[in-house]
Amino acid sequence: MIVECALYRNGEKVALDCPRDDVAAVRAAGTESGDFTWVGLYEPPSEELEKVAEVFTLHPLAVEDALSAHQRPKLEQFGDVLLLCLKTLWYVDAADAVETGEVSVFVGPDFVLSVRHGQGAELQSARHALEDQAKVLAHGPFSVLYAVVDRIVDEYNQVATGLEEDVTEVEASVFSDQRRDDTNRIYVLKRELQEMRRAVYPLREPLRRLATSSVPGMSERSAPFFRDVADNLNLVADTVEGLESLLSSAFDAHLARISVQQNEDMRKISAGAALVVVPTLIAGIYGMNFTHMPELEWAFGYPMALGLMLASALGLIVLFKRSGWL
Amino acid sequence: MIVECALYRNGEKVALDCPRDDVAAVRAAGTESGDFTWVGLYEPPSEELEKVAEVFTLHPLAVEDALSAHQRPKLEQFGDVLLLCLKTLWYVDAADAVETGEVSVFVGPDFVLSVRHGQGAELQSARHALEDQAKVLAHGPFSVLYAVVDRIVDEYNQVATGLEEDVTEVEASVFSDQRRDDTNRIYVLKRELQEMRRAVYPLREPLRRLATSSVPGMSERSAPFFRDVADNLNLVADTVEGLESLLSSAFDAHLARISVQQNEDMRKISAGAALVVVPTLIAGIYGMNFTHMPELEWAFGYPMALGLMLASALGLIVLFKRSGWL
Amino acid sequence: MIVECALYRNGEKVALDCPRDDVAAVRAAGTESGDFTWVGLYEPPSEELEKVAEVFTLHPLAVEDALSAHQRPKLEQFGDVLLLCLKTLWYVDAADAVETGEVSVFVGPDFVLSVRHGQGAELQSARHALEDQAKVLAHGPFSVLYAVVDRIVDEYNQVATGLEEDVTEVEASVFSDQRRDDTNRIYVLKRELQEMRRAVYPLREPLRRLATSSVPGMSERSAPFFRDVADNLNLVADTVEGLESLLSSAFDAHLARISVQQNEDMRKISAGAALVVVPTLIAGIYGMNFTHMPELEWAFGYPMALGLMLASALGLIVLFKRSGWL
Amino acid sequence: MIVECALYRNGEKVALDCPRDDVAAVRAAGTESGDFTWVGLYEPPSEELEKVAEVFTLHPLAVEDALSAHQRPKLEQFGDVLLLCLKTLWYVDAADAVETGEVSVFVGPDFVLSVRHGQGAELQSARHALEDQAKVLAHGPFSVLYAVVDRIVDEYNQVATGLEEDVTEVEASVFSDQRRDDTNRIYVLKRELQEMRRAVYPLREPLRRLATSSVPGMSERSAPFFRDVADNLNLVADTVEGLESLLSSAFDAHLARISVQQNEDMRKISAGAALVVVPTLIAGIYGMNFTHMPELEWAFGYPMALGLMLASALGLIVLFKRSGWL
Amino acid sequence: MIVECALYRNGEKVALDCPRDDVAAVRAAGTESGDFTWVGLYEPPSEELEKVAEVFTLHPLAVEDALSAHQRPKLEQFGDVLLLCLKTLWYVDAADAVETGEVSVFVGPDFVLSVRHGQGAELQSARHALEDQAKVLAHGPFSVLYAVVDRIVDEYNQVATGLEEDVTEVEASVFSDQRRDDTNRIYVLKRELQEMRRAVYPLREPLRRLATSSVPGMSERSAPFFRDVADNLNLVADTVEGLESLLSSAFDAHLARISVQQNEDMRKISAGAALVVVPTLIAGIYGMNFTHMPELEWAFGYPMALGLMLASALGLIVLFKRSGWL
Ligand SMILES: [Mg+2]
Ligand SMILES: [Mg+2]
Ligand SMILES: [Mg+2]
Ligand SMILES: [Mg+2]
Ligand SMILES: [Mg+2]
Ligand SMILES: [Mg+2]
Ligand SMILES: [Mg+2]
Ligand SMILES: [Mg+2]
Ligand SMILES: [Mg+2]
Ligand SMILES: [Mg+2]
Ligand SMILES: [Mg+2]
Ligand SMILES: [Mg+2]
Ligand SMILES: [Mg+2]
Ligand SMILES: [Mg+2]
Ligand SMILES: [Mg+2]
Ligand SMILES: [Mg+2]
Ligand SMILES: [Mg+2]
Ligand SMILES: [Mg+2]
Ligand SMILES: [Mg+2]
Ligand SMILES: [Mg+2]
Ligand SMILES: [Mg+2]
Ligand SMILES: [Mg+2]
Ligand SMILES: [Mg+2]
Ligand SMILES: [Mg+2]
Ligand SMILES: [Mg+2]
Ligand SMILES: [Mg+2]
Ligand SMILES: [Mg+2]
Ligand SMILES: [Mg+2]
Ligand SMILES: [Mg+2]
Ligand SMILES: [Mg+2]
Ligand SMILES: [Mg+2]
Repeated sequence: MIVECALYRNGEKVALDCPRDDVAAVRAAGTESGDFTWVGLYEPPSEELEKVAEVFTLHPLAVEDALSAHQRPKLEQFGDVLLLCLKTLWYVDAADAVETGEVSVFVGPDFVLSVRHGQGAELQSARHALEDQAKVLAHGPFSVLYAVVDRIVDEYNQVATGLEEDVTEVEASVFSDQRRDDTNRIYVLKRELQEMRRAVYPLREPLRRLATSSVPGMSERSAPFFRDVADNLNLVADTVEGLESLLSSAFDAHLARISVQQNEDMRKISAGAALVVVPTLIAGIYGMNFTHMPELEWAFGYPMALGLMLASALGLIVLFKRSGWL
Repeated sequence: MIVECALYRNGEKVALDCPRDDVAAVRAAGTESGDFTWVGLYEPPSEELEKVAEVFTLHPLAVEDALSAHQRPKLEQFGDVLLLCLKTLWYVDAADAVETGEVSVFVGPDFVLSVRHGQGAELQSARHALEDQAKVLAHGPFSVLYAVVDRIVDEYNQVATGLEEDVTEVEASVFSDQRRDDTNRIYVLKRELQEMRRAVYPLREPLRRLATSSVPGMSERSAPFFRDVADNLNLVADTVEGLESLLSSAFDAHLARISVQQNEDMRKISAGAALVVVPTLIAGIYGMNFTHMPELEWAFGYPMALGLMLASALGLIVLFKRSGWL
Repeated sequence: MIVECALYRNGEKVALDCPRDDVAAVRAAGTESGDFTWVGLYEPPSEELEKVAEVFTLHPLAVEDALSAHQRPKLEQFGDVLLLCLKTLWYVDAADAVETGEVSVFVGPDFVLSVRHGQGAELQSARHALEDQAKVLAHGPFSVLYAVVDRIVDEYNQVATGLEEDVTEVEASVFSDQRRDDTNRIYVLKRELQEMRRAVYPLREPLRRLATSSVPGMSERSAPFFRDVADNLNLVADTVEGLESLLSSAFDAHLARISVQQNEDMRKISAGAALVVVPTLIAGIYGMNFTHMPELEWAFGYPMALGLMLASALGLIVLFKRSGWL
Repeated sequence: MIVECALYRNGEKVALDCPRDDVAAVRAAGTESGDFTWVGLYEPPSEELEKVAEVFTLHPLAVEDALSAHQRPKLEQFGDVLLLCLKTLWYVDAADAVETGEVSVFVGPDFVLSVRHGQGAELQSARHALEDQAKVLAHGPFSVLYAVVDRIVDEYNQVATGLEEDVTEVEASVFSDQRRDDTNRIYVLKRELQEMRRAVYPLREPLRRLATSSVPGMSERSAPFFRDVADNLNLVADTVEGLESLLSSAFDAHLARISVQQNEDMRKISAGAALVVVPTLIAGIYGMNFTHMPELEWAFGYPMALGLMLASALGLIVLFKRSGWL
Repeated sequence: MIVECALYRNGEKVALDCPRDDVAAVRAAGTESGDFTWVGLYEPPSEELEKVAEVFTLHPLAVEDALSAHQRPKLEQFGDVLLLCLKTLWYVDAADAVETGEVSVFVGPDFVLSVRHGQGAELQSARHALEDQAKVLAHGPFSVLYAVVDRIVDEYNQVATGLEEDVTEVEASVFSDQRRDDTNRIYVLKRELQEMRRAVYPLREPLRRLATSSVPGMSERSAPFFRDVADNLNLVADTVEGLESLLSSAFDAHLARISVQQNEDMRKISAGAALVVVPTLIAGIYGMNFTHMPELEWAFGYPMALGLMLASALGLIVLFKRSGWL
């Protein structure tokens, strides 16, 4: 689906009366130096993308990458066209889940083409925000690339915040006094952090190259903008790394707590058992059949035996408490 | 065994009437510039390979590598001949097993020679697919190298998919409520992933060199094709790394589950024991031989004692449930 | 808030009669070569910072970084202005907590502007100390950068010392004979060390660049000063790494101690149980109802039985001690 | 001990009538261009080595290295003499043990001197094998270096094979149903693998330099030979790394199996206990002394009680089996 | 304290009649080319060091480093003066302890100044040994640097040997049959190895620079000497790394042994319990009060019951042994 297709001149959108689908016509209208066309596609079918690709004479292998949407984040040069593939991320709180989509951006001398897959990271609002900054938009196609990447990295940040909260909850649960098996949640969070890492880490090198304007056709004036995005990306990468490390520590702590709890339970059980088996021994003694057992004849023999049982139980309780066993 | 031997000109197979085994004759028929011979061998005996090697004057050490089929993936230059050794992989679902074969490809100015060992990755279909793409085939010997590597890396991808399913199954088993010892399967999968890693990781550097056309004799036009394969290989490498990390987490989770289960079992056992030992104490009490034990004379003494035993058991059950012990 | 704004000439503060807030006037008074203005801001509101930024024509993205105070430590060049962002750290002993603030320093040809966020690391005393070293101050704006970074890194050192003490306490607790669950404290210290690492590690590269005077506009004479700070920073980084590694070892030791203790407890419990169940068996034997049990008629049968119980208990104690069970 | 000392010309050994010990005379006999002397020493005493060193004017520090035989594998240039130090390895199956010796090879323009320490890796057979390959031997002193290193690396390979078998045995033992403590063997194998790694890993860099002919005095024609050895060495290094990783996994699996077994044992014990304590309770009940207990008077009361005990035991067994407890 | 101060010419000490403290006079006596002064200080007070520093016009920051003795090992250039800071180590066997001191060496065109802190590594004997090697000493100030570093690295080696013995002892203890808690000793050794690593690892880069004579003012002739020291240092670093890895394995093995032992203890306990509870059940049966229990009237009923108890115990023992439970 062609979401939008417009021509920009000096940081302003040019009003055209050709239909949004007629990419060739829009491009042809760009007759002045610095004019550029910005086309946005959403999950285009193969033929639609190929038609647009023809207008801008894109390399077939590059088109295949944008179509299949199963790329590692990367920055590639095909002649004078640059292709940046990157992942979009969004967070589903109910399942502690990170979800992944993909955006491919082609940057040519007089055009930008973005192809988006998956539900997250709509780019229209980024377009509108950029249209309000004529000065930035006047930098040309690379300003669009900046706007798209900036938006997507901002969303990485929101996902990181969501996961940070989850890790804090896990931390609290692990150290709570209740018996809870946090294993499953820790595992899920590790897995989702791994998914996030796969989007974030490989994007650092492409952004580094943009931030140092080591791609042909890009003006040095644009570098600080990509440097700013690269900063944000590095912060997200730090957060991901930090959360992974915290989760590992939390898991270790969880294991230690299980062991400690087992120790305590074992001591409780043994104490409980002592409270029963010692009186049982006493009962056993007075159940012996010796002819000469004076206590048996005592008027208060029976209450005495019961008292003895009670006393032994109380004595054991005191002993266990004092010795630190309980 | 010589699987195939043919001459190619301008992206087309040349019809020749010399026998498939007469490699020298096929080569000699290549009289125009850009002609090249493509020979495919399958587990050739030493003499057969040496005969072919003589036709193309290959370096003895290179021939030895292709023969013994026990090489790390590598790209080597012997004069104007390039040798790429790489592993083939296939997946045997019933045993969670990754199996390994080997392919060596010699690329000279006017020939390509592939030597295959092991059952996986037949290359004939890759040959036929390439013969249908005259434009690509016209790139010369390097297009054949591309076709072979592309096919093999696609098969890596299938193996990775098989292992991904296995890891998902392990994950489900670890977190299921049934007692299962997943240790063995996790171990096997780790071992097979290691086998896969040994095929995949060392191939990245050769492919990087091909993708940046930093080998002599290769045209820049071919680079994007190898870049495409390198992308796929990197995806596979990421998957392998991710699965290894998930398996480690799954193993840790498995250990934690065992501990938690032991705690629960221990609490169940102690509760069960309590249900027996407390009534045993009561029975012991009424088994004492005191002369003055009024209950013993009561008409309903016996049912009362039994009731007391039952009540104690029920009381304990309620207590264990309420306190969270069970 | 503008904490201070002054003009320096030849290592001396110039007495001016314009108000502290009138940054433009102070700067304008710097008419001789080598004169420079030093402005210190503390948590400035957006407008205040933008007013000052206008005086020195700072890049909007750089100003944004100084304002939001959520940067990774970094050194960036914007035209002839250098921006160093770094974290301040302080230690709250009661909670084993490391707290984090942020300082951004802009260094231009004739000015230094520092923007501080958070409670730690006041910089006024660093200013006064530097004003007492006219020779160093005469190096110009970079001497101010040195003074600020030196102060902040000194504070890192104090935090590291605080954490070192905590780790020593944990060590003592883990190996003490008392039952203590050190898991929580170890976890907290790991987390705080991670926070510290995030401030310290990324600052090494900026300091390395300053220490090798690989930034434009900086005199070689200043390099040894930054080298000195870089040394201190590296020491702190070593300490952080060492403490993290010690904590991991301490945690492992803690786990081992829990297991050992459980073993010992289990052996103690079984020994305790033996002391009761063996006498219970004896009592059971003399509670049997056989017609012919000569002991039952003995005058001293009952004391003999009690003696047997006692003897069995004592015998068991001796046995357990001798065999190393207890 | 001087094992051998001979002069080589055009790939052939020159028949000389001077004694094997007279190294200076042998060298002096090499009057044609390309002639070289090959001396082999085995654990020479200090004076013997120094006498030979004088003939070839070797650097005293280099001689010390060859004498003490306590070097990290390394390649060093002393003027126009190259010194390669490397470890020899051999495998003692009975003890799962890797043993280490050392070889130092000096390569000069017209001589090769090898000094061997320890029992493994005799080099005479390598000499004879090389003497049979006149074409290779004609490459000069570096062909000798190649022959020596090739032989030693082949022996690394045999050691790796021995350890691979051991790890497979450990694997089988860990997953066998018998109770076995594999801890000790895993530890020993880890230690021996570490010993092996210390020989193999540091040798990779010297071999890389030889394989790329980046040492002065070496002809490019020799490079493929060293590349071949470097391939083998890398394979060995991969094997070592793989075995270390498998052993770690096997150890983890071993730990998990111990835990699982403890769980199972605990459940077996509790089941066994139940089979005894429930009948004991029944016996206790019919051992109570109530006046009115009708069962006591029944003719078949006693068999009924015994039947009840048996029935309870059988019922428990069924229950444990059905519930998955056993 | 000035330990020694002397002038050297052509590898010989020059006899002077000025007092040892008069550093300026000694230096002034060095009038010929190649003459150099060697001053050795031990824990000098601030003023003493500053007086000497003035004679050689050392940089204040460098002097501060030598005074505070709290440096990471490093090699720094201040004008034409080189400063090498390194740690001294010694081993206290009784406590498995590594102790750390510090030495700073200033090397100028015509002087060497060493400043030593802490008890280890006296340097006087290194001085005397060097004075006996006129040829080496004639290399000038760098020969002194070599002598000092060589001595200190030799002492690292002794410390490594001490720790190697400790690790071997730990290994033996872990795998001994006695119950011992090796946790504490393993922890202490890890901590001390860390201390050692901090001295050894950062020194490798400075030594690499000296070994490749990439410092100004040093003659190429001296490089092999530093290469020799670098070799030794690398060996020590390998040992430290190997010991750390062995200790980790030993700790893992220790944990596994604890678990195995707990399993065995649990099985022993359950077997012991069975020997008591089964006879208790038999006693309970014959303690029942049924009117019709023929055994009770038997003349040998009582011995039969006791025999039954004994038989059950013996039967259980046989059963446990046969089934592998014990
Ligand atoms: Mg949630
Ligand atoms: Mg997900
Ligand atoms: Mg932004
Ligand atoms: Mg959440
Ligand atoms: Mg919990
Ligand atoms: Mg920013
Ligand atoms: Mg346990
Ligand atoms: Mg399967
Ligand atoms: Mg396999
Ligand atoms: Mg493909
Ligand atoms: Mg499967
Ligand atoms: Mg399970
Ligand atoms: Mg692709
Ligand atoms: Mg505190
Ligand atoms: Mg904090
Ligand atoms: Mg300082
Ligand atoms: Mg504290
Ligand atoms: Mg403790
Ligand atoms: Mg310093
Ligand atoms: Mg063996
Ligand atoms: Mg060994
Ligand atoms: Mg070979
Ligand atoms: Mg073996
Ligand atoms: Mg086993
Ligand atoms: Mg080979
Ligand atoms: Mg000791
Ligand atoms: Mg110490
Ligand atoms: Mg030495
Ligand atoms: Mg010792
Ligand atoms: Mg032990
Ligand atoms: Mg040496």
